[in-house]
Amino acid sequence: MRAENKFAMKLRRRNVALTVAYDGTNYSGFQWQSPPHVAVQNVLEERLAKIFGDTIELAAAGRTDAGVHAFGQVVNFFTDGTIPAEKIPIAASCVLPPDIVVRHAREADKNFSALHSAKSKIYLYRILRGAASNPLVNRFAWHIFRPLDVEAMRQALKILVGTHDFSSFKAAGGAPNMNPVREIFSAEIFGEELFGADVLTIKIHASGFLYHMARNIVALTVAVGRHRIGLDDFKKIFAARDRSLVPATAPAQGLCLQEVFY
Amino acid sequence: MRAENKFAMKLRRRNVALTVAYDGTNYSGFQWQSPPHVAVQNVLEERLAKIFGDTIELAAAGRTDAGVHAFGQVVNFFTDGTIPAEKIPIAASCVLPPDIVVRHAREADKNFSALHSAKSKIYLYRILRGAASNPLVNRFAWHIFRPLDVEAMRQALKILVGTHDFSSFKAAGGAPNMNPVREIFSAEIFGEELFGADVLTIKIHASGFLYHMARNIVALTVAVGRHRIGLDDFKKIFAARDRSLVPATAPAQGLCLQEVFY
Repeated sequence: MRAENKFAMKLRRRNVALTVAYDGTNYSGFQWQSPPHVAVQNVLEERLAKIFGDTIELAAAGRTDAGVHAFGQVVNFFTDGTIPAEKIPIAASCVLPPDIVVRHAREADKNFSALHSAKSKIYLYRILRGAASNPLVNRFAWHIFRPLDVEAMRQALKILVGTHDFSSFKAAGGAPNMNPVREIFSAEIFGEELFGADVLTIKIHASGFLYHMARNIVALTVAVGRHRIGLDDFKKIFAARDRSLVPATAPAQGLCLQEVFY
Repeated sequence: MRAENKFAMKLRRRNVALTVAYDGTNYSGFQWQSPPHVAVQNVLEERLAKIFGDTIELAAAGRTDAGVHAFGQVVNFFTDGTIPAEKIPIAASCVLPPDIVVRHAREADKNFSALHSAKSKIYLYRILRGAASNPLVNRFAWHIFRPLDVEAMRQALKILVGTHDFSSFKAAGGAPNMNPVREIFSAEIFGEELFGADVLTIKIHASGFLYHMARNIVALTVAVGRHRIGLDDFKKIFAARDRSLVPATAPAQGLCLQEVFY
Protein backbone atom coordinates (compact mmCIF):
# COMPACT_ATOMS: atom_id res chain seq x y z
CA MET A 1 0.00 0.00 0.00
CA ARG A 2 1.18 3.52 -0.76
CA ALA A 3 1.09 6.21 1.93
CA GLU A 4 -1.46 8.93 1.29
CA ASN A 5 -0.40 11.75 3.59
CA LYS A 6 0.84 14.41 1.15
CA PHE A 7 1.27 16.94 3.96
CA ALA A 8 3.59 14.66 5.94
CA MET A 9 5.60 14.11 2.76
CA LYS A 10 6.19 17.85 2.41
CA LEU A 11 7.66 18.01 5.92
CA ARG A 12 10.62 16.02 4.67
CA ARG A 13 13.81 17.99 4.17
CA ARG A 14 14.48 17.67 0.48
CA ASN A 15 12.54 17.94 -2.78
CA VAL A 16 14.48 15.97 -5.40
CA ALA A 17 13.79 16.26 -9.15
CA LEU A 18 14.92 13.56 -11.59
CA THR A 19 15.06 13.42 -15.37
CA VAL A 20 14.14 9.86 -16.31
CA ALA A 21 14.34 7.93 -19.59
CA TYR A 22 12.60 4.61 -20.18
CA ASP A 23 11.75 2.02 -22.78
CA GLY A 24 8.01 1.68 -22.09
CA THR A 25 7.58 -1.59 -24.01
CA ASN A 26 7.27 -3.81 -20.94
CA TYR A 27 5.29 -1.45 -18.67
CA SER A 28 1.63 -0.63 -18.13
CA GLY A 29 2.37 3.06 -18.65
CA PHE A 30 4.02 5.48 -16.26
CA GLN A 31 1.34 5.86 -13.59
CA TRP A 32 1.37 3.57 -10.53
CA GLN A 33 -0.89 0.53 -10.83
CA SER A 34 -1.84 -2.17 -8.38
CA PRO A 35 -0.17 -5.55 -8.99
CA PRO A 36 0.00 -7.68 -11.07
CA HIS A 37 0.35 -4.66 -13.38
CA VAL A 38 3.78 -3.05 -13.36
CA ALA A 39 4.05 0.62 -14.27
CA VAL A 40 7.29 2.60 -14.49
CA GLN A 41 6.25 4.46 -11.33
CA ASN A 42 5.94 1.19 -9.37
CA VAL A 43 9.51 0.26 -10.23
CA LEU A 44 10.95 3.73 -9.61
CA GLU A 45 9.27 4.14 -6.20
CA GLU A 46 10.22 0.66 -5.04
CA ARG A 47 13.85 0.80 -6.17
CA LEU A 48 14.55 4.44 -5.23
CA ALA A 49 13.26 3.68 -1.71
CA LYS A 50 16.33 1.45 -1.28
CA ILE A 51 18.68 4.33 -2.07
CA PHE A 52 16.91 6.93 0.06
CA GLY A 53 15.84 4.72 2.98
CA ASP A 54 12.45 6.43 2.74
CA THR A 55 9.09 5.58 1.25
CA ILE A 56 9.00 7.39 -2.11
CA GLU A 57 5.97 8.93 -3.80
CA LEU A 58 6.58 10.49 -7.17
CA ALA A 59 4.80 13.25 -9.03
CA ALA A 60 5.49 13.14 -12.78
CA ALA A 61 5.28 15.67 -15.62
CA GLY A 62 3.41 13.32 -17.93
CA ARG A 63 1.39 10.16 -17.38
CA THR A 64 2.63 8.33 -20.45
CA ASP A 65 0.43 5.44 -21.63
CA ALA A 66 1.28 1.75 -21.79
CA GLY A 67 4.01 1.23 -24.39
CA VAL A 68 4.94 4.94 -24.65
CA HIS A 69 8.60 5.82 -24.04
CA ALA A 70 10.39 8.76 -22.43
CA PHE A 71 13.74 10.41 -22.91
CA GLY A 72 13.07 13.41 -20.66
CA GLN A 73 10.28 12.51 -18.22
CA VAL A 74 10.61 14.65 -15.06
CA VAL A 75 9.57 13.46 -11.59
CA ASN A 76 9.96 14.86 -8.09
CA PHE A 77 9.61 13.51 -4.56
CA PHE A 78 10.17 14.55 -0.96
CA THR A 79 12.75 12.70 1.12
CA ASP A 80 14.93 12.81 4.21
CA GLY A 81 17.51 10.60 2.47
CA THR A 82 21.00 12.07 2.40
CA ILE A 83 22.54 10.85 -0.87
CA PRO A 84 23.93 13.88 -2.79
CA ALA A 85 22.07 14.73 -6.01
CA GLU A 86 25.11 14.17 -8.24
CA LYS A 87 25.44 10.58 -7.01
CA ILE A 88 21.81 9.62 -7.61
CA PRO A 89 22.09 8.64 -11.33
CA ILE A 90 24.84 6.06 -10.69
CA ALA A 91 23.24 4.77 -7.48
CA ALA A 92 19.94 4.42 -9.36
CA SER A 93 21.61 2.48 -12.18
CA CYS A 94 22.63 -0.15 -9.60
CA VAL A 95 19.04 -0.81 -8.51
CA LEU A 96 16.98 -0.10 -11.67
CA PRO A 97 16.45 -2.48 -14.62
CA PRO A 98 18.24 -1.43 -17.85
CA ASP A 99 15.02 -0.15 -19.42
CA ILE A 100 14.66 2.65 -16.84
CA VAL A 101 17.46 5.22 -16.46
CA VAL A 102 17.83 8.28 -14.21
CA ARG A 103 19.64 10.67 -16.54
CA HIS A 104 19.97 13.60 -14.13
CA ALA A 105 19.08 14.58 -10.55
CA ARG A 106 18.89 17.97 -8.81
CA GLU A 107 17.69 19.61 -5.62
CA ALA A 108 14.43 21.45 -6.26
CA ASP A 109 12.65 24.25 -4.45
CA LYS A 110 10.02 23.02 -1.95
CA ASN A 111 7.29 24.45 -4.17
CA PHE A 112 8.47 22.67 -7.31
CA SER A 113 6.10 20.05 -8.72
CA ALA A 114 7.14 18.08 -11.81
CA LEU A 115 3.43 17.95 -12.71
CA HIS A 116 2.10 21.39 -11.81
CA SER A 117 5.19 23.51 -12.55
CA ALA A 118 5.55 22.25 -16.14
CA LYS A 119 5.30 25.10 -18.68
CA SER A 120 5.47 23.03 -21.88
CA LYS A 121 6.45 19.65 -23.29
CA ILE A 122 7.93 18.17 -26.42
CA TYR A 123 6.70 14.82 -27.69
CA LEU A 124 8.35 12.97 -30.57
CA TYR A 125 6.53 10.42 -32.70
CA ARG A 126 8.66 8.16 -34.90
CA ILE A 127 7.49 6.43 -38.08
CA LEU A 128 9.61 3.66 -39.59
CA ARG A 129 9.37 3.78 -43.40
CA GLY A 130 10.08 1.21 -46.08
CA ALA A 131 8.85 -2.20 -47.14
CA ALA A 132 10.63 -4.06 -44.35
CA SER A 133 10.53 -3.35 -40.65
CA ASN A 134 13.74 -2.98 -38.62
CA PRO A 135 14.07 -4.86 -35.31
CA LEU A 136 16.61 -2.36 -33.95
CA VAL A 137 14.05 0.44 -34.27
CA ASN A 138 10.54 -1.07 -34.26
CA ARG A 139 10.20 -1.00 -30.46
CA PHE A 140 10.27 2.78 -30.80
CA ALA A 141 8.42 3.47 -34.05
CA TRP A 142 5.23 2.83 -36.02
CA HIS A 143 6.08 0.90 -39.18
CA ILE A 144 4.23 2.26 -42.22
CA PHE A 145 5.31 0.58 -45.43
CA ARG A 146 3.03 2.53 -47.76
CA PRO A 147 4.40 5.79 -49.26
CA LEU A 148 3.87 9.01 -47.28
CA ASP A 149 3.63 12.53 -48.71
CA VAL A 150 5.91 14.27 -46.23
CA GLU A 151 5.31 17.77 -47.63
CA ALA A 152 1.53 17.40 -47.19
CA MET A 153 2.10 16.16 -43.63
CA ARG A 154 4.29 19.23 -42.95
CA GLN A 155 1.49 21.53 -44.18
CA ALA A 156 -1.07 19.71 -42.02
CA LEU A 157 1.07 20.08 -38.90
CA LYS A 158 1.47 23.84 -39.55
CA ILE A 159 -2.31 24.21 -39.34
CA LEU A 160 -2.16 23.13 -35.68
CA VAL A 161 0.31 25.81 -34.53
CA GLY A 162 -1.24 28.41 -32.20
CA THR A 163 -3.86 28.42 -29.44
CA HIS A 164 -6.80 26.20 -30.37
CA ASP A 165 -9.54 23.92 -29.10
CA PHE A 166 -8.07 20.43 -29.64
CA SER A 167 -11.29 18.48 -28.91
CA SER A 168 -10.99 16.62 -32.23
CA PHE A 169 -7.79 15.05 -30.95
CA LYS A 170 -8.85 14.14 -27.42
CA ALA A 171 -9.25 10.53 -26.33
CA ALA A 172 -12.46 8.82 -27.43
CA GLY A 173 -14.59 8.62 -24.29
CA GLY A 174 -12.11 10.82 -22.40
CA ALA A 175 -12.93 13.27 -19.60
CA PRO A 176 -15.60 15.56 -21.13
CA ASN A 177 -15.17 18.45 -18.70
CA MET A 178 -11.49 19.14 -19.27
CA ASN A 179 -10.62 22.45 -20.90
CA PRO A 180 -9.65 21.38 -24.45
CA VAL A 181 -7.67 24.54 -25.29
CA ARG A 182 -3.91 24.18 -25.66
CA GLU A 183 -1.18 26.14 -27.41
CA ILE A 184 1.07 24.37 -29.91
CA PHE A 185 4.33 26.34 -30.29
CA SER A 186 5.74 24.21 -33.10
CA ALA A 187 4.87 21.03 -35.00
CA GLU A 188 7.60 19.78 -37.30
CA ILE A 189 8.43 16.71 -39.34
CA PHE A 190 11.93 15.59 -40.35
CA GLY A 191 13.87 12.53 -41.45
CA GLU A 192 16.39 10.67 -39.27
CA GLU A 193 18.58 7.65 -39.95
CA LEU A 194 18.51 5.37 -36.91
CA PHE A 195 20.35 2.02 -36.94
CA GLY A 196 20.23 2.01 -40.74
CA ALA A 197 16.47 2.62 -40.80
CA ASP A 198 14.68 5.46 -42.61
CA VAL A 199 12.71 7.16 -39.83
CA LEU A 200 10.27 10.05 -40.14
CA THR A 201 9.91 11.98 -36.89
CA ILE A 202 7.05 14.28 -35.89
CA LYS A 203 8.03 16.74 -33.14
CA ILE A 204 5.33 18.68 -31.29
CA HIS A 205 6.05 21.36 -28.67
CA ALA A 206 2.92 22.44 -26.78
CA SER A 207 1.81 24.05 -23.54
CA GLY A 208 0.19 20.74 -22.70
CA PHE A 209 -1.39 17.71 -24.31
CA LEU A 210 -4.90 16.29 -23.86
CA TYR A 211 -5.01 12.55 -23.21
CA HIS A 212 -4.12 10.80 -26.54
CA MET A 213 -3.76 14.20 -28.28
CA ALA A 214 -0.26 13.57 -29.68
CA ARG A 215 -1.15 10.13 -31.05
CA ASN A 216 -4.44 11.36 -32.54
CA ILE A 217 -2.65 14.26 -34.26
CA VAL A 218 -0.24 11.69 -35.73
CA ALA A 219 -3.13 9.50 -36.90
CA LEU A 220 -4.80 12.36 -38.80
CA THR A 221 -1.48 13.63 -40.17
CA VAL A 222 -0.70 10.14 -41.50
CA ALA A 223 -4.13 10.10 -43.19
CA VAL A 224 -3.00 13.25 -45.04
CA GLY A 225 0.38 11.68 -45.82
CA ARG A 226 -1.34 8.65 -47.35
CA HIS A 227 -3.68 10.89 -49.37
CA ARG A 228 -6.70 9.39 -47.67
CA ILE A 229 -7.81 12.94 -46.83
CA GLY A 230 -6.72 16.34 -48.17
CA LEU A 231 -5.53 19.42 -46.27
CA ASP A 232 -9.04 20.93 -46.49
CA ASP A 233 -10.48 17.82 -44.82
CA PHE A 234 -7.76 18.08 -42.16
CA LYS A 235 -8.78 21.69 -41.44
CA LYS A 236 -12.49 20.80 -41.31
CA ILE A 237 -11.96 17.87 -38.95
CA PHE A 238 -9.74 20.02 -36.69
CA ALA A 239 -12.38 22.78 -36.62
CA ALA A 240 -15.27 20.33 -35.99
CA ARG A 241 -14.03 19.52 -32.44
CA ASP A 242 -15.39 16.02 -32.93
CA ARG A 243 -13.13 13.10 -31.98
CA SER A 244 -15.21 10.62 -33.99
CA LEU A 245 -13.91 12.10 -37.29
CA VAL A 246 -10.26 11.23 -36.54
CA PRO A 247 -8.89 7.76 -37.46
CA ALA A 248 -7.83 5.26 -34.79
CA THR A 249 -5.18 6.52 -32.37
CA ALA A 250 -1.63 5.91 -33.67
CA PRO A 251 0.19 3.02 -31.92
CA ALA A 252 1.77 3.76 -28.53
CA GLN A 253 5.26 2.51 -29.34
CA GLY A 254 6.04 5.43 -31.70
CA LEU A 255 5.55 8.06 -28.99
CA CYS A 256 8.29 9.43 -26.75
CA LEU A 257 8.09 12.18 -24.10
CA GLN A 258 11.24 13.99 -25.16
CA GLU A 259 11.54 17.07 -22.95
CA VAL A 260 9.65 19.03 -20.28
CA PHE A 261 10.20 22.76 -19.77
CA TYR A 262 9.74 24.59 -16.44
CA MET B 1 14.30 -33.26 -35.07
CA ARG B 2 15.94 -31.63 -38.08
CA ALA B 3 16.45 -33.53 -41.30
CA GLU B 4 20.08 -34.21 -42.11
CA ASN B 5 20.03 -35.14 -45.77
CA LYS B 6 21.80 -32.20 -47.43
CA PHE B 7 21.77 -33.95 -50.82
CA ALA B 8 18.01 -34.38 -50.81
CA MET B 9 17.69 -30.69 -49.93
CA LYS B 10 19.66 -29.70 -53.03
CA LEU B 11 17.24 -31.59 -55.26
CA ARG B 12 14.60 -29.04 -54.42
CA ARG B 13 13.81 -26.54 -57.16
CA ARG B 14 14.78 -23.21 -55.63
CA ASN B 15 17.67 -21.77 -53.64
CA VAL B 16 16.32 -18.71 -51.82
CA ALA B 17 18.58 -16.11 -50.17
CA LEU B 18 17.27 -13.77 -47.48
CA THR B 19 18.73 -10.69 -45.83
CA VAL B 20 17.65 -10.83 -42.21
CA ALA B 21 17.79 -8.29 -39.35
CA TYR B 22 17.24 -9.18 -35.72
CA ASP B 23 17.40 -7.87 -32.19
CA GLY B 24 19.44 -10.69 -30.61
CA THR B 25 18.59 -9.74 -27.00
CA ASN B 26 16.17 -12.57 -26.39
CA TYR B 27 17.91 -15.34 -28.38
CA SER B 28 20.64 -17.88 -27.67
CA GLY B 29 22.57 -16.65 -30.72
CA PHE B 30 21.85 -17.35 -34.37
CA GLN B 31 22.72 -21.02 -34.64
CA TRP B 32 20.01 -23.66 -34.11
CA GLN B 33 19.88 -25.08 -30.59
CA SER B 34 17.84 -27.85 -29.07
CA PRO B 35 14.97 -26.72 -26.83
CA PRO B 36 14.49 -25.16 -24.33
CA HIS B 37 17.06 -22.80 -25.91
CA VAL B 38 15.69 -20.63 -28.68
CA ALA B 39 18.07 -19.37 -31.34
CA VAL B 40 17.16 -17.08 -34.23
CA GLN B 41 17.60 -20.03 -36.60
CA ASN B 42 15.02 -22.12 -34.67
CA VAL B 43 12.42 -19.37 -35.11
CA LEU B 44 13.24 -18.67 -38.76
CA GLU B 45 13.15 -22.34 -39.79
CA GLU B 46 9.94 -23.05 -37.91
CA ARG B 47 8.05 -19.96 -39.12
CA LEU B 48 9.32 -19.93 -42.71
CA ALA B 49 8.23 -23.58 -43.04
CA LYS B 50 4.64 -22.30 -42.75
CA ILE B 51 5.10 -20.00 -45.75
CA PHE B 52 6.92 -22.49 -47.95
CA GLY B 53 5.07 -25.66 -46.96
CA ASP B 54 8.48 -27.34 -46.74
CA THR B 55 10.91 -28.23 -44.00
CA ILE B 56 13.48 -25.44 -43.99
CA GLU B 57 17.19 -25.77 -43.19
CA LEU B 58 19.14 -22.56 -43.30
CA ALA B 59 22.81 -21.87 -43.95
CA ALA B 60 23.90 -18.48 -42.57
CA ALA B 61 26.78 -16.10 -43.31
CA GLY B 62 27.63 -15.60 -39.64
CA ARG B 63 26.90 -17.56 -36.48
CA THR B 64 26.31 -14.57 -34.27
CA ASP B 65 26.60 -15.20 -30.52
CA ALA B 66 23.89 -14.93 -27.88
CA GLY B 67 22.87 -11.28 -27.55
CA VAL B 68 24.54 -10.16 -30.80
CA HIS B 69 22.34 -8.38 -33.34
CA ALA B 70 22.19 -8.30 -37.13
CA PHE B 71 21.10 -5.75 -39.70
CA GLY B 72 22.35 -7.67 -42.74
CA GLN B 73 22.67 -11.36 -41.86
CA VAL B 74 22.33 -13.47 -45.02
CA VAL B 75 20.83 -16.97 -45.08
CA ASN B 76 19.90 -19.38 -47.86
CA PHE B 77 17.79 -22.54 -48.10
CA PHE B 78 16.47 -24.98 -50.70
CA THR B 79 12.72 -25.25 -51.19
CA ASP B 80 9.97 -26.40 -53.53
CA GLY B 81 7.68 -23.70 -52.14
CA THR B 82 6.21 -21.39 -54.80
CA ILE B 83 5.86 -17.99 -53.13
CA PRO B 84 7.55 -15.32 -55.33
CA ALA B 85 10.72 -13.79 -53.84
CA GLU B 86 9.30 -10.26 -53.77
CA LYS B 87 6.39 -11.40 -51.57
CA ILE B 88 8.55 -13.19 -48.99
CA PRO B 89 9.38 -10.16 -46.75
CA ILE B 90 5.72 -9.27 -46.17
CA ALA B 91 4.64 -12.92 -45.81
CA ALA B 92 7.48 -13.44 -43.31
CA SER B 93 6.41 -10.38 -41.29
CA CYS B 94 3.05 -12.09 -40.72
CA VAL B 95 4.60 -15.16 -39.08
CA LEU B 96 7.77 -13.79 -37.44
CA PRO B 97 7.99 -12.01 -34.08
CA PRO B 98 8.81 -8.26 -34.32
CA ASP B 99 12.44 -8.80 -33.28
CA ILE B 100 13.22 -10.80 -36.46
CA VAL B 101 12.69 -9.18 -39.87
CA VAL B 102 13.29 -10.44 -43.42
CA ARG B 103 14.50 -7.27 -45.13
CA HIS B 104 14.99 -8.71 -48.61
CA ALA B 105 14.61 -11.99 -50.53
CA ARG B 106 16.01 -13.14 -53.87
CA GLU B 107 16.41 -16.26 -56.03
CA ALA B 108 19.99 -17.50 -55.80
CA ASP B 109 22.05 -19.75 -58.04
CA LYS B 110 22.01 -23.43 -56.98
CA ASN B 111 25.69 -23.14 -56.00
CA PHE B 112 25.19 -20.12 -53.76
CA SER B 113 25.83 -20.68 -50.06
CA ALA B 114 25.31 -17.80 -47.62
CA LEU B 115 28.13 -19.31 -45.54
CA HIS B 116 30.69 -20.47 -48.09
CA SER B 117 30.17 -17.84 -50.82
CA ALA B 118 30.74 -14.89 -48.45
CA LYS B 119 33.69 -12.74 -49.55
CA SER B 120 33.75 -10.30 -46.64
CA LYS B 121 31.68 -8.91 -43.76
CA ILE B 122 31.16 -5.67 -41.89
CA TYR B 123 30.55 -5.74 -38.15
CA LEU B 124 29.60 -2.63 -36.18
CA TYR B 125 30.23 -2.28 -32.45
CA ARG B 126 28.41 0.52 -30.65
CA ILE B 127 29.54 2.19 -27.43
CA LEU B 128 27.11 4.40 -25.49
CA ARG B 129 29.00 7.30 -23.89
CA GLY B 130 28.16 9.61 -21.02
CA ALA B 131 27.41 9.37 -17.31
CA ALA B 132 23.87 8.05 -17.76
CA SER B 133 22.75 5.10 -19.85
CA ASN B 134 19.93 5.44 -22.39
CA PRO B 135 17.16 2.82 -22.42
CA LEU B 136 16.35 3.48 -26.09
CA VAL B 137 19.89 2.49 -27.08
CA ASN B 138 21.35 0.25 -24.37
CA ARG B 139 19.98 -2.97 -25.87
CA PHE B 140 22.32 -2.31 -28.79
CA ALA B 141 25.40 -0.76 -27.17
CA TRP B 142 28.03 -1.15 -24.44
CA HIS B 143 27.67 1.68 -21.95
CA ILE B 144 31.06 3.14 -20.96
CA PHE B 145 30.71 6.18 -18.73
CA ARG B 146 34.44 6.86 -18.32
CA PRO B 147 36.10 9.20 -20.88
CA LEU B 148 37.52 7.63 -24.05
CA ASP B 149 40.39 8.96 -26.16
CA VAL B 150 38.81 8.51 -29.58
CA GLU B 151 41.91 9.61 -31.51
CA ALA B 152 44.06 6.97 -29.77
CA MET B 153 41.38 4.35 -30.56
CA ARG B 154 41.44 5.42 -34.21
CA GLN B 155 45.24 4.94 -34.32
CA ALA B 156 44.93 1.52 -32.68
CA LEU B 157 42.35 0.35 -35.22
CA LYS B 158 44.60 1.48 -38.10
CA ILE B 159 47.28 -0.94 -36.87
CA LEU B 160 44.95 -3.85 -37.62
CA VAL B 161 44.37 -3.03 -41.28
CA GLY B 162 45.96 -5.54 -43.68
CA THR B 163 46.53 -9.30 -43.73
CA HIS B 164 47.61 -10.54 -40.30
CA ASP B 165 47.56 -13.41 -37.85
CA PHE B 166 44.73 -12.46 -35.47
CA SER B 167 45.43 -15.14 -32.82
CA SER B 168 45.58 -12.50 -30.07
CA PHE B 169 41.90 -11.76 -30.74
CA LYS B 170 40.56 -15.30 -31.04
CA ALA B 171 38.21 -16.75 -28.45
CA ALA B 172 39.83 -17.97 -25.24
CA GLY B 173 39.79 -21.77 -25.49
CA GLY B 174 38.58 -21.58 -29.10
CA ALA B 175 39.40 -24.06 -31.88
CA PRO B 176 43.22 -24.19 -31.90
CA ASN B 177 43.62 -25.58 -35.41
CA MET B 178 41.77 -22.89 -37.32
CA ASN B 179 43.87 -20.74 -39.65
CA PRO B 180 44.11 -17.43 -37.71
CA VAL B 181 45.02 -15.27 -40.74
CA ARG B 182 42.41 -12.78 -41.92
CA GLU B 183 42.48 -9.54 -43.91
CA ILE B 184 41.01 -6.38 -42.42
CA PHE B 185 40.13 -3.96 -45.22
CA SER B 186 39.14 -1.07 -42.96
CA ALA B 187 38.65 -0.40 -39.24
CA GLU B 188 37.07 2.94 -38.46
CA ILE B 189 35.56 4.78 -35.50
CA PHE B 190 32.97 7.55 -35.69
CA GLY B 191 30.30 9.30 -33.61
CA GLU B 192 26.56 8.89 -34.15
CA GLU B 193 23.57 10.43 -32.39
CA LEU B 194 20.95 7.74 -31.81
CA PHE B 195 17.71 8.53 -29.92
CA GLY B 196 19.44 11.50 -28.26
CA ALA B 197 22.38 9.36 -27.10
CA ASP B 198 26.05 10.00 -27.84
CA VAL B 199 27.19 6.79 -29.54
CA LEU B 200 30.70 5.85 -30.66
CA THR B 201 30.69 3.23 -33.40
CA ILE B 202 33.57 0.96 -34.44
CA LYS B 203 33.17 -0.41 -37.98
CA ILE B 204 35.34 -3.30 -39.14
CA HIS B 205 35.32 -4.69 -42.68
CA ALA B 206 37.25 -7.96 -42.98
CA SER B 207 37.55 -11.05 -45.17
CA GLY B 208 36.30 -13.00 -42.18
CA PHE B 209 36.28 -12.98 -38.40
CA LEU B 210 37.61 -15.56 -35.95
CA TYR B 211 35.17 -16.51 -33.21
CA HIS B 212 35.00 -13.50 -30.77
CA MET B 213 37.51 -11.56 -32.90
CA ALA B 214 35.39 -8.42 -33.33
CA ARG B 215 34.54 -8.20 -29.63
CA ASN B 216 38.15 -8.85 -28.57
CA ILE B 217 39.40 -6.13 -30.92
CA VAL B 218 36.88 -3.78 -29.29
CA ALA B 219 38.03 -4.79 -25.80
CA LEU B 220 41.69 -4.00 -26.56
CA THR B 221 40.79 -0.79 -28.44
CA VAL B 222 38.77 0.40 -25.44
CA ALA B 223 41.80 -0.31 -23.20
CA VAL B 224 43.71 2.14 -25.42
CA GLY B 225 40.84 4.64 -25.30
CA ARG B 226 40.86 4.53 -21.51
CA HIS B 227 44.67 4.96 -21.41
CA ARG B 228 45.09 1.65 -19.63
CA ILE B 229 47.57 0.66 -22.35
CA GLY B 230 49.43 2.70 -24.97
CA LEU B 231 49.64 2.19 -28.73
CA ASP B 232 52.99 0.43 -28.33
CA ASP B 233 51.40 -2.06 -25.95
CA PHE B 234 48.56 -2.54 -28.43
CA LYS B 235 51.10 -3.35 -31.17
CA LYS B 236 53.01 -5.77 -28.93
CA ILE B 237 49.88 -7.61 -27.82
CA PHE B 238 48.67 -7.87 -31.44
CA ALA B 239 52.07 -9.25 -32.52
CA ALA B 240 52.30 -11.70 -29.61
CA ARG B 241 49.45 -13.87 -31.00
CA ASP B 242 48.51 -14.63 -27.40
CA ARG B 243 44.83 -14.33 -26.45
CA SER B 244 45.62 -14.20 -22.72
CA LEU B 245 47.06 -10.66 -23.07
CA VAL B 246 43.76 -9.16 -24.27
CA PRO B 247 41.16 -7.95 -21.71
CA ALA B 248 37.79 -9.70 -21.28
CA THR B 249 35.69 -9.91 -24.46
CA ALA B 250 33.48 -6.82 -24.95
CA PRO B 251 29.77 -7.40 -24.16
CA ALA B 252 27.67 -9.08 -26.86
CA GLN B 253 24.92 -6.47 -27.02
CA GLY B 254 27.16 -3.84 -28.70
CA LEU B 255 27.87 -6.03 -31.72
CA CYS B 256 25.86 -6.05 -34.95
CA LEU B 257 26.49 -7.99 -38.17
CA GLN B 258 25.91 -5.10 -40.53
CA GLU B 259 26.58 -6.38 -44.04
CA VAL B 260 27.86 -9.43 -45.92
CA PHE B 261 29.47 -9.15 -49.35
CA TYR B 262 29.43 -11.89 -52.02
